[in-house]
Formats: sequence, structure tokens, C-alpha cells
Amino acid sequence: MQHHKALLYHNHQLIILDQTQLPHRLKYLRLTNYRQIIGAIKRLQIRGAPLLGIAAAYGLVLESNTSLKNLRSHLFKVAQALKTARPTAVNLSWAVDQMLNIIKNKNIPTCQLNKILLEQARYLEQKEINNSLLIGQYGAPLIKNHSTIMTICNTGWLAAPGIGTALGIIYTAHQQGKKIHVYVLETRPLLQGSRLTAFELTQAKIPYTIITDNMMATVMKDTNLVIIGADRIARNGDTANKIGSLTLAITAQYYKVPFYVAAPTSTIDLTKQTGQDIPIEQRSAEEIICLGKKSITVKNAPVYNPAFDVTPHHLITAIITEQGILKSPYSQSIAKLCV
Amino acid sequence: MQHHKALLYHNHQLIILDQTQLPHRLKYLRLTNYRQIIGAIKRLQIRGAPLLGIAAAYGLVLESNTSLKNLRSHLFKVAQALKTARPTAVNLSWAVDQMLNIIKNKNIPTCQLNKILLEQARYLEQKEINNSLLIGQYGAPLIKNHSTIMTICNTGWLAAPGIGTALGIIYTAHQQGKKIHVYVLETRPLLQGSRLTAFELTQAKIPYTIITDNMMATVMKDTNLVIIGADRIARNGDTANKIGSLTLAITAQYYKVPFYVAAPTSTIDLTKQTGQDIPIEQRSAEEIICLGKKSITVKNAPVYNPAFDVTPHHLITAIITEQGILKSPYSQSIAKLCV
Repeated sequence: MQHHKALLYHNHQLIILDQTQLPHRLKYLRLTNYRQIIGAIKRLQIRGAPLLGIAAAYGLVLESNTSLKNLRSHLFKVAQALKTARPTAVNLSWAVDQMLNIIKNKNIPTCQLNKILLEQARYLEQKEINNSLLIGQYGAPLIKNHSTIMTICNTGWLAAPGIGTALGIIYTAHQQGKKIHVYVLETRPLLQGSRLTAFELTQAKIPYTIITDNMMATVMKDTNLVIIGADRIARNGDTANKIGSLTLAITAQYYKVPFYVAAPTSTIDLTKQTGQDIPIEQRSAEEIICLGKKSITVKNAPVYNPAFDVTPHHLITAIITEQGILKSPYSQSIAKLCV
Repeated sequence: MQHHKALLYHNHQLIILDQTQLPHRLKYLRLTNYRQIIGAIKRLQIRGAPLLGIAAAYGLVLESNTSLKNLRSHLFKVAQALKTARPTAVNLSWAVDQMLNIIKNKNIPTCQLNKILLEQARYLEQKEINNSLLIGQYGAPLIKNHSTIMTICNTGWLAAPGIGTALGIIYTAHQQGKKIHVYVLETRPLLQGSRLTAFELTQAKIPYTIITDNMMATVMKDTNLVIIGADRIARNGDTANKIGSLTLAITAQYYKVPFYVAAPTSTIDLTKQTGQDIPIEQRSAEEIICLGKKSITVKNAPVYNPAFDVTPHHLITAIITEQGILKSPYSQSIAKLCV
């Protein structure tokens, strides 16, 4: 499948597609240090759990391209800053930890660090590309011909180094020749559905309809399955994902529509027993009070803006990973994985 | 309770507060004929089921202020046009039918029509003001001190000639000295929650928090009750209301939170057996594709934009009317009403 690149490491630069400009402009940003990467992550110029992990990995590559004397201690500091750029998606920590294994390895001379970290980052990127393909292969059989699928946020090539997670499954089913239709929840407040997923589906020529998030019940009775991505999955299967996922899961259950989570196993956090242990990022009031720079409500109106919610495992029909499809009881199926 | 007027008939003009300009500007429009009223209704410059009915009634008053020869047949034509300005809220038809009773009465000389229609419109307006007060009185005991209430769209003095329906109950509880907090769903696509309800609650100094519609599940566990308005209620209690109400009802049921509908009995349509018989207005794609004049998604993206949905009666804890609180089985409690 052909698509633009959301992220590219080239010539000591991390080149990212500025997702805040989509779908109106295809603008690439060239980042040359970790502070710029953290800024881009916080502003959601780059986003999507698997993609964030790879961006952070390349951040350590960028920062290791120096003759700094205390390089290792510098990289430890950078690693910590990158990990905490956003608190909910565990892939950030996961990827940084993979890089830290190399930085901590005293057998690697400092002068070799940049080269080996670059190899490691490229390996992690390729691994996520493969993960997307495998998730697509495992998930596509769940989509029958002439299915209608509902999804939230963006989980395609803008969210992962490969074809994506939930959207990767949709792409795979489409490539298999299945006729499908996608209900795209616009995903307030930042409209990742109507801005990013609609953009991807338009490019891929997959039929879709945008609906406001509150219409989910109205069209759920015409929906065959729901597939979403994940930002962090606890040991028991509880899943943190974009705000709105929990309302979507409850609505799907009411209409007895299967509700699937698609994510690489790098999204599973074995240190978290349940979803209650997952930190939820609170974002600025501006995102709800304004659209762009335009105020859409009362000045200084009180708002609540959690970026994620947690769907309890009992509302999840299955979790689709690159290692296969996990079913309830998730505490057992997750324990059997190689993570 | 002091508040601005959303609608005022004065000096052969219908003066309305332009709700599309809120909360940023308090701009009044002076309407002098029924075409202007229909335009204002279609553009949602005036909205809210009970308020629409009264606006339509004054439209017939305006049009009767003439020495036109075929006045009665002109008014029949105007009545039909006003009734169909928006299809879902039955209050439009209800109010126009009340006016038609006079127009059809051959005992009233044509030269007297304007005067008597004005008296009738003022009576209907006052009746809805009283209805709001009674709905508030019946509903307020359902709100305990220190309650958190969730609501959608706008149902206060911007939606009715009096203090409103769902919001009227909230105002009444507040006036009774109860400490309350309101979760205001922003209500995409036209943001009646964040634009209008937030404006009303700010003016009334009632504490509130705006949330995006998809956050309803996240805060439902901290919510004591949900109250919404209604655009049309069928004989069996099925309730058409602002899009999102159905998702809200399903979410409330999941968390075992009481879900109340507040509406004057003029909202009950005895000609509709169930919600399936209620026409649902489809509005333009622009409302979802653009915010103001700013495009927020792919050009010409396919969207679905029903303005209302139907909540089945079994998800409704009670319906609060000016004649008292209706409980299930609604087909029986509604049949006992004087409508």
C-alpha cells in the first residue's frame, strides 16, 4: 500500500509530517534535537502511540550525534524527558527503554553509540512496520465482505510507522477486495477522526462517512464491528485510548456490536495491574474553548479535558496484536505473550 | 429569576435574540414578516422547541396585520409554511394549530383577526412561561443538595418563553438553595451546550463544566442524574431530542444514573405511536465540515448530519411535564394527560 511518510530519519534530521496542518497542508518539519521533538509531541504535530515511540528513539539518535564528553549522562537526561513528553501512551517509554538498553551497555564505546543507536531505532521502526502488517493479517478476517466498521481517532499510517493498527486492519481488508464502509467519529476536541482518518481514507479510496461523536448510537445499529487503537493496555486488558473510546464501547455493547482493540504488544504495560493504574493526560482548556484561534464558548468557561479514557476489559471482545488475537480472560492471554 | 429575553413581540415586530451570535454578541433581530421568521428558524437564530412554537404564533400575528382581501387563505398558507420550517419539533405545529383554531372560526370577522390572534399568541406564550415554572417545581425535588447533573444542548430561557425545561429544573433547584454542579455536553455540531447553556449558567452563577460529547462516560460515574429536553414525544414515551441524547441515555443506563426528559405536554404528539414515526431533520454537511467558515476536514468529505435522535422509552426514568411526572408505562401515563 502506498502512502506518504509520517516520519523519516535522514541526514541527521527527523523529518515529520506536521499533523496539526492536515488535511489542508502537507507540511514537513525538520527536527534536529530532542527539545524540538518534545515540542512537536506536546503540540501533537506528531502523534499516535506507536509513532511516538519511534520518534523518541530517533530523538536519542539525534542527541548521540555529538562529541559531548558526558554523552551517556546527557542521553539519560534526554531519555527521561522524552519518556514524559506525554504520559499515557506507553510506547514512548517502551521505545526509550529499548534504546536505554544500549546506552547502559558499558561494552559499547561512546564513540560507537550513535551508530548503534541508529541501528536500534531503525530496527524498532521496522519492527513496528511488521507489527502493523501482522495486526492487519490477524484482524482482517474479522471484517466480512460488505461490513460497516466504526472507529475513533486516527490509527493508520499517521499513527504508526507502518499501515497502522485499527486502520491497518481496515486497509488490509480493503486490499483483500472486501467491500467496506467506515463510520469515522470526528473525535473532539482535536478532530483526529475528521482531520486525519478522513484524510487517510480519502487517499486510500475507502468509502467513509464522518459523524459527530454523539451520533455513535444512532448509527451503531447499522454497524458490524468497532475497531479502535490503544495507548496503553494493563495486565488485565483494561485499555487506555483516545477520549470517547469508553462511551463507544458502552454503546457497542448496548447494540451487541463486537468491540475490538488493535495494538502492538509494545502497548501492553505489564507494570499496570488494571486501567486504574494508567496515568491519564490532562490537556489545556484551550482545546475545548477554542477551535484554532477562534473562541467557541464563554470566555474562561470551566472545562474538563482528559485526552484519554479507560475501557474496562469486559467491554472488549478481543485485542488484536502482532502475536495473534487475545481473548478474555485477558490476564491469562496477556501473561502468555512474549513482551 | 432575571434573564434576557430570547423573544419579544412589540410594535408589530418580533424581536429575537440572534442565537447564532452567542455567547460573543447580544444582537437582536427585528422580524416583520413570516419569511424572515422562517429564515431565522432554519438558520437556528431562534431555536428550542417551545420557543419555536411561540415564534410561529407571532408570525401569524404579523401576517394578519394587513388589510389583505384574502386574509384567511393567506394565513392558511403562512401557517403551513411555518409548520414545516423545521420538521422534528412538534411545538411548531402545535402552536400553529392553536392559532388556526381562531383563523378557521368564521364567527370572528376578518377585521378582528389580528387583535384576537395577538391575544392568542400572548396566551400561548404565557402558558409556556407557566409550564416552565411548573416543570421546574415538579422536577426540582429530583435534584438533591450537592448533586451533579449532566445535560445536552440548550433547554433554558433561550429555548422556551419561560425559564426552560431541563435547565428550568436546574434553575429551580438552584433557587431553592441547593448546591449543584452541571456537566454541559458541548453538543456537536452546533455547540448549543458550550455556546448557549454555558452562557446561561454563567449568567445565573451556577457552577458548571463543559465536556466534549464523547466524555459523557468518563464523568457519568460522578453524575447523579441526567436531564434533557425534548422536541417530540410519541404516545409510548419514545423521545426525539437533540442528536446525542440516545448515546447519553445508553451511557446513563450503563452507570445506572437516572435519565429524565423535561418537556411541556405540547411536546407530546398523540398522532405518533412510537419514535419510529417521528420525522428526523437532516441538516447540511457544512455544519460538520466547517466551523463557522473554516473547513475542519477533507474538502467535500461525506458526512451524516441528523439533527435529532430518538431515545426509546425504556431508557427514560421519567418524563417531567407541567401536569406532573410521568412514569412507565408511558402509553398509560400519557393517555391520562389533558393534551
